[in-house]
Amino acid sequence: MDYIKVPGEIEKGSFEIISKELGDKDITGLEGAVVKRIIHTTADFEYRDITLVHPDAIHAGIRAIKAGGSIYADTSMIMAGVNKKRLSSLGGEILNHVHDEDVAKKAKELGITRSMVALEKACTNSDIKIFAIGNAPTALFMLKKLIEEGKVKPDLIIGVPVGFVGAAESKDEIAKLDVPYIITKGRKGGSPVAAAIINALLYNA
Amino acid sequence: MDYIKVPGEIEKGSFEIISKELGDKDITGLEGAVVKRIIHTTADFEYRDITLVHPDAIHAGIRAIKAGGSIYADTSMIMAGVNKKRLSSLGGEILNHVHDEDVAKKAKELGITRSMVALEKACTNSDIKIFAIGNAPTALFMLKKLIEEGKVKPDLIIGVPVGFVGAAESKDEIAKLDVPYIITKGRKGGSPVAAAIINALLYNA
Repeated sequence: MDYIKVPGEIEKGSFEIISKELGDKDITGLEGAVVKRIIHTTADFEYRDITLVHPDAIHAGIRAIKAGGSIYADTSMIMAGVNKKRLSSLGGEILNHVHDEDVAKKAKELGITRSMVALEKACTNSDIKIFAIGNAPTALFMLKKLIEEGKVKPDLIIGVPVGFVGAAESKDEIAKLDVPYIITKGRKGGSPVAAAIINALLYNA
Repeated sequence: MDYIKVPGEIEKGSFEIISKELGDKDITGLEGAVVKRIIHTTADFEYRDITLVHPDAIHAGIRAIKAGGSIYADTSMIMAGVNKKRLSSLGGEILNHVHDEDVAKKAKELGITRSMVALEKACTNSDIKIFAIGNAPTALFMLKKLIEEGKVKPDLIIGVPVGFVGAAESKDEIAKLDVPYIITKGRKGGSPVAAAIINALLYNA
């Protein structure tokens, strides 16, 4: 069998195909870099139309990363997908609290999702400048509440939960805020989409 | 804001919506459980049409898991997404070799992907009964080669690499083999799809 085996060639070829197939809908610049990396991760061109990028989002995200800011992720899949070597070389780290013992305990007591309690815990850590939510709409609703209460002011929200219950609504709520955001409208999104967005920022920081 | 905060309710509600929207295309039984969990993870109903399940695949996978078989995953994102507690309660574990030092060294020497070398290493471990490839077509091509050479005989191949260079072709090659497989035809797939398939098997084992 004849196939491309050289690592760099595969990624290069992929991005060329994506640009070509986007055709008239091709987007350049940093927003293009973000959207194309999402398509590279999902092979789903619908992200061209459903990815909504607040005008300040990309620069705010890159600035935060360059300043050594840390990232909160609502899933360990996001953590696994992010280029942590590059992130730590810039001084930041990526954190998740869903599996913390105190979080599990409190969530059980309150009868709410661990994602909500974990998000609340993350908001007490002032090193965290970017919040990336790929799975739990409840975490995104909680983030909105805490922003409105003045308890946290993220440099960037990556709000891309996937799903059928609350996902679309939670993203619509974030789009109403005066905080830089990158969201995917509707049901689609997920941890690999969140990781792709973070990596696009890292590679351009 | 009023939204569902109770963990179990969110998943239950999601699967009800998926079944309802599948309508005439709804599928029941174990194949349905697999396909619906993929849709739950991606919010993408196209997986109803592109997921190809070999007639023996699901039973072979469940049998392997119940017997304590281990799983090789080509990405750490798959490992992050799999219910490892449930897997280990059945005696298996999930492994990945892409970040092993010896693998990185050999891949560099040969000028091929680490995914290929890692896959080859996994094939020397007889505890591994299921191979789940969510990212690297090169790993899937390598797996096909080793099967044809008689060096490995998996109980199940979960072949769902996503992408633009080699992904579709690698899956077509797997579908020619006389080995139980679950694949996603074309470009779509990815680590969350692989993890969703594994979890569907785990929850039915």
